[in-house]
Amino acid sequence: MKRQQTLANRVAILGLGLIGGSLALALKRAGAVSEIVAWGRDQQRLDKAVALGIVDSATTDMASAVAAADVVVMATPLGTMSSMFDQLIPVLPSKAVITDVGSAKTRLIELARTRLAENFTRFVPGHPVAGAEHSGFEAANADLYKNRRVILTPVSDTDASALKLVEQLWQCCGAELVSMDPQSHDEILALTSHLPHAIAYLLVDLLLQQGGGDARRFAAGGFYDITRIASSSPEMWCDIFNDNKDSVVKLMDHYIDSLSAFKQAIAEGDNDTLMRVMQRAKSTRDDLV
Amino acid sequence: MKRQQTLANRVAILGLGLIGGSLALALKRAGAVSEIVAWGRDQQRLDKAVALGIVDSATTDMASAVAAADVVVMATPLGTMSSMFDQLIPVLPSKAVITDVGSAKTRLIELARTRLAENFTRFVPGHPVAGAEHSGFEAANADLYKNRRVILTPVSDTDASALKLVEQLWQCCGAELVSMDPQSHDEILALTSHLPHAIAYLLVDLLLQQGGGDARRFAAGGFYDITRIASSSPEMWCDIFNDNKDSVVKLMDHYIDSLSAFKQAIAEGDNDTLMRVMQRAKSTRDDLV
Repeated sequence: MKRQQTLANRVAILGLGLIGGSLALALKRAGAVSEIVAWGRDQQRLDKAVALGIVDSATTDMASAVAAADVVVMATPLGTMSSMFDQLIPVLPSKAVITDVGSAKTRLIELARTRLAENFTRFVPGHPVAGAEHSGFEAANADLYKNRRVILTPVSDTDASALKLVEQLWQCCGAELVSMDPQSHDEILALTSHLPHAIAYLLVDLLLQQGGGDARRFAAGGFYDITRIASSSPEMWCDIFNDNKDSVVKLMDHYIDSLSAFKQAIAEGDNDTLMRVMQRAKSTRDDLV
Repeated sequence: MKRQQTLANRVAILGLGLIGGSLALALKRAGAVSEIVAWGRDQQRLDKAVALGIVDSATTDMASAVAAADVVVMATPLGTMSSMFDQLIPVLPSKAVITDVGSAKTRLIELARTRLAENFTRFVPGHPVAGAEHSGFEAANADLYKNRRVILTPVSDTDASALKLVEQLWQCCGAELVSMDPQSHDEILALTSHLPHAIAYLLVDLLLQQGGGDARRFAAGGFYDITRIASSSPEMWCDIFNDNKDSVVKLMDHYIDSLSAFKQAIAEGDNDTLMRVMQRAKSTRDDLV
């Protein structure tokens, strides 16, 4: 990768898990920033991250973490964002650009608008769509965002230079940038990610409730694939379901209706309906490949 | 693989797709049978299978196919079984053992009992649980059943020597044999395979109905995995849903109830319920690995 001009002097990453840690590694490798400071709750963990070379320094003190920061990346779970704003606002440098990595955007943007007040224009909402089967900074790697999509959802009053800076930071991590409005983001992610997670959790739960040990022995092949994402973090998904409640609930209603109609078609032996639905679904799925 | 004693002279395979073709290759390789004849509807396709060395001979004439057969393997789709019995019964050798490979068992067994009449005791219901992303005998391979489970669901009047012979045939293909009653088979497969397929088809259909082109661009990662099985054959799955109607409909009712309850918990911000369900599902899924 060619040497990058320095985009920012000091970047503060609040929350050093897989996402924050990988961002730190990618930014450093690209030579895009001079210094990366992490904030976290557990000094022992933070010391380990510094020892591993993931960040330059790390502290549990928010004021020290964000002092003189050009960019503040909020990389803690969505459920903590309200309290993160509480801690951040009193110590936020007046010109710092703020961004986040949350999987749901509309509610967070409302929250940010209220809390950040006059600083809100420098808040650039973001969502790196990077798989995260593992977690923790130990799993961080500088290639996590290479050729992966990062969605930014700026609003009408988002500052253009703040947006530009966040775009450049992700670009030098190798990401493919996509811009969309927050509502579209939340509807699309509800469909392609949030509902599938609910479906997977509930399918495994059905195996637990309705199936005995014999059923589990046969839960291989298709079942195994379809439920892989049910090994994701319940805490993270609880936050996402809360933050994208409206889109997820609306889609679940549609999905429940279509399951009910399909069930009815099976019960009535209405093969025309079964075939029509499955053929158009197969054709759609084949085209995704 | 050590040389096997000959278990049967002549095996007739009715329907030469991936399942029938792979069985033919595996039996021949094991030296378990002297001659394999295929029956099919399309002589050109059958000629190709013979040319490829998948079977010794092949015919569209049922009487020639099963003449002097020790074992008749019904390997056509479930939806054709009624008409297959019509064609088979007038020409079935009086001592032939009959078996099948269908993914649903209770209804087929009822059908076989009525149609085969006094020959029913020599019918050994079977289900090789082998993945079939590809189809057609061109995809056949002698290792398809190696270390894969084959479920046999004999009933109280199934002849012990017929059962033994079918077991030996699958064993020499490298399969792991499992025996269970037909009702348990259908309930377990409804849970681990049939419902997941319905879920996958309907999730892709929801993408088609509710998502635009942007949504499809983001249908990667989790969505892609969870919907892989929606590329399966609609014809085959229509048959399976018909043949396992009772178990599938019952399970879909349970699943719809649990989706509704989860949706309600999201709508109400009932995080205790969300966490309880997701934690027990994650723990169950992690234990499957």
